[in-house]
Amino acid sequence: MRVLILGGDGYLGWPTAMHLSAQGHEVAVADNYLRRNLMREEDVESLSPCLNLNERIRLWKEHTGKEIVICIGDLNHWDFIARIFKEFQPEAIIHYAEQPSAPYSMLRREAATLTINNNLGVTANVIFAVREFCPDAHIVKLGTMGEYGTPNIDIEEGWIDIEHKGRKEKFLYPRQAGSLYHTTKIMDTDLLWYYVRMWDLRVTDLMQGPVYGIFTGESEVDASLLTLFSYDELFGTVLNRFIVQAVAGYPLTVYGKGGQTRGYLNIKDTLNCVRLSLENPARNGELRIFNQFTETFSVNELAGKVQSAGKQLGIDVEIKNIENPRKELEEHYYNPQHTGLLDLGLSPNLLTDTALGQMMEFVLRHRANIAQHKIFRGTKWA
Amino acid sequence: MRVLILGGDGYLGWPTAMHLSAQGHEVAVADNYLRRNLMREEDVESLSPCLNLNERIRLWKEHTGKEIVICIGDLNHWDFIARIFKEFQPEAIIHYAEQPSAPYSMLRREAATLTINNNLGVTANVIFAVREFCPDAHIVKLGTMGEYGTPNIDIEEGWIDIEHKGRKEKFLYPRQAGSLYHTTKIMDTDLLWYYVRMWDLRVTDLMQGPVYGIFTGESEVDASLLTLFSYDELFGTVLNRFIVQAVAGYPLTVYGKGGQTRGYLNIKDTLNCVRLSLENPARNGELRIFNQFTETFSVNELAGKVQSAGKQLGIDVEIKNIENPRKELEEHYYNPQHTGLLDLGLSPNLLTDTALGQMMEFVLRHRANIAQHKIFRGTKWA
Repeated sequence: MRVLILGGDGYLGWPTAMHLSAQGHEVAVADNYLRRNLMREEDVESLSPCLNLNERIRLWKEHTGKEIVICIGDLNHWDFIARIFKEFQPEAIIHYAEQPSAPYSMLRREAATLTINNNLGVTANVIFAVREFCPDAHIVKLGTMGEYGTPNIDIEEGWIDIEHKGRKEKFLYPRQAGSLYHTTKIMDTDLLWYYVRMWDLRVTDLMQGPVYGIFTGESEVDASLLTLFSYDELFGTVLNRFIVQAVAGYPLTVYGKGGQTRGYLNIKDTLNCVRLSLENPARNGELRIFNQFTETFSVNELAGKVQSAGKQLGIDVEIKNIENPRKELEEHYYNPQHTGLLDLGLSPNLLTDTALGQMMEFVLRHRANIAQHKIFRGTKWA
Repeated sequence: MRVLILGGDGYLGWPTAMHLSAQGHEVAVADNYLRRNLMREEDVESLSPCLNLNERIRLWKEHTGKEIVICIGDLNHWDFIARIFKEFQPEAIIHYAEQPSAPYSMLRREAATLTINNNLGVTANVIFAVREFCPDAHIVKLGTMGEYGTPNIDIEEGWIDIEHKGRKEKFLYPRQAGSLYHTTKIMDTDLLWYYVRMWDLRVTDLMQGPVYGIFTGESEVDASLLTLFSYDELFGTVLNRFIVQAVAGYPLTVYGKGGQTRGYLNIKDTLNCVRLSLENPARNGELRIFNQFTETFSVNELAGKVQSAGKQLGIDVEIKNIENPRKELEEHYYNPQHTGLLDLGLSPNLLTDTALGQMMEFVLRHRANIAQHKIFRGTKWA
């Protein structure tokens, strides 16, 4: 299958490119290094050094003989995205090309505006490009579990049947997010759902939880093929950050009471979920939504797991409940459904002591690169 | 009260400015003539000639002695909007500054992109400007009943209580719109609701139905103070269009079966609803939502009313069911609540034969300006 990966330089984009290339798909990646540029601007670069996309693609070819097509440019520019679609004629598009950080989106007005313009602009361009150049292509869009927020009722898989005053209707599950970044993902969903209905597009929207980990099957060929690994407050996901804090002797920063509960998954399962979605595409006129995570944990539970994994490696890990810079519920009901991807055959990689130990060993190898002052910044929500 | 009207040159913006100025408020208007420019570009200008904002403001002062502050520029540019907020220090903002046409938003990719960028960009700038310069100011935002679409259950006033698997939660009423334009209004709601929760903004979101009419109390001073009146498919609302079609001897263009039902209101009631919202502001941290219409009609009912009003003036009005260029339900359940504004004291101006007759007489006076080829264009939704 010809698969176009938008945001192919990112934490998930590059491992996805290798994974699908290894599976025999014809892969093209597009990126403008937005995330890397923001990381450099905010002085929070990856823990492990990370080759540019051209270099990684050459290295991938040296090891596997497989070609990945590269397109460097801004997908928010119509001329650029139109040229890619026209030339590559994708059968599927994996859309990761968004500013991916909640705290970054809350930093200042310019960061919020960049997030809105980039995320919605690219999603709109993807819709128009599919309509114009490949109307039957399957769009696999990365959404987020954060779109739902933390409601007091069960979170269903994208949709909810409502009975109201004796009548019934099926709706998109109501969304109410916890950051501007997450709100742009809701707006993406609005946009996709509208054009699915109007233009019979085929869309799978993956409501993904926070991802952890760095190793994927394909990265084992050469350590230089590893994806970037953020450990700072802006771009690092919570478990990756906690592992680095544990190794650095920096008390784990639990925000407030630490009862905040989310659905997590290993980066290997992101690749599996995306691949399963590709292999079992949505129908024309269908917005198919999966809740993409494998286990739920509270922040306190994650901190406890990191602490005990540290103990096994002889590291004494301190946990510190600090004032919550975010505005969010610190204790809440959380029961999200997530059977769709399991039904497609997902076999989860759970958060075992072994998985934690491997991540910790990876971080130990790069401990010289950890800059303590980059770990916590306290970006305030209000 | 110092009231800043964004989109003060528009169909509703200018009459609102006169109305609030007449009531003794200190009024400033901002506009970049976007709607007029689009109307000229698409060759669908107002039925009646319309002075520019500076001219109308001078005329208003001649007649009433009252000053209206004018700011010409693009509210999507931060420097412009920041300067206005800083200098005028509004206590309330009425936000009409959006590309307001559903068919225009469906014309072509560039029109869709303009609608997304303008509508969301201005709404975001309003939020950031209020946060920075006047955090206690009341934002009165014009939304649309079209955000709800036509669900099979009663439409509540902005919010819905859901009981699901034995637990309860209150949500924004699920939204599912019928055009890209309406979808940008949903995205506005997402954005406002997020920052209301984070920053304790005070917001009233008015879910308005299609407006009809041209006369408002203030316009009676001088016919040159009348607002613009669109009769084309792009910018004209359905009843205004039907009146012009009746006068022009152009069969009323009922799309499909004509069972499409919406909530309508007289332009006088738009002004009353906005004024009542200003006089009874939302609290800090409150997104207050009103469904702003006074009566519901199907398109067939509207066409019938125009036909019989025509008969009284000796005009023979033909009705023609044409192929629906839109993708929408032509027969559906529709029961939207609308008690909030009545509770604040709204006394509706209903669609009487007199009201229809006055509109028809106005159009008769300008019948020489009607260009038949501008009436219907058949902009397709899919």
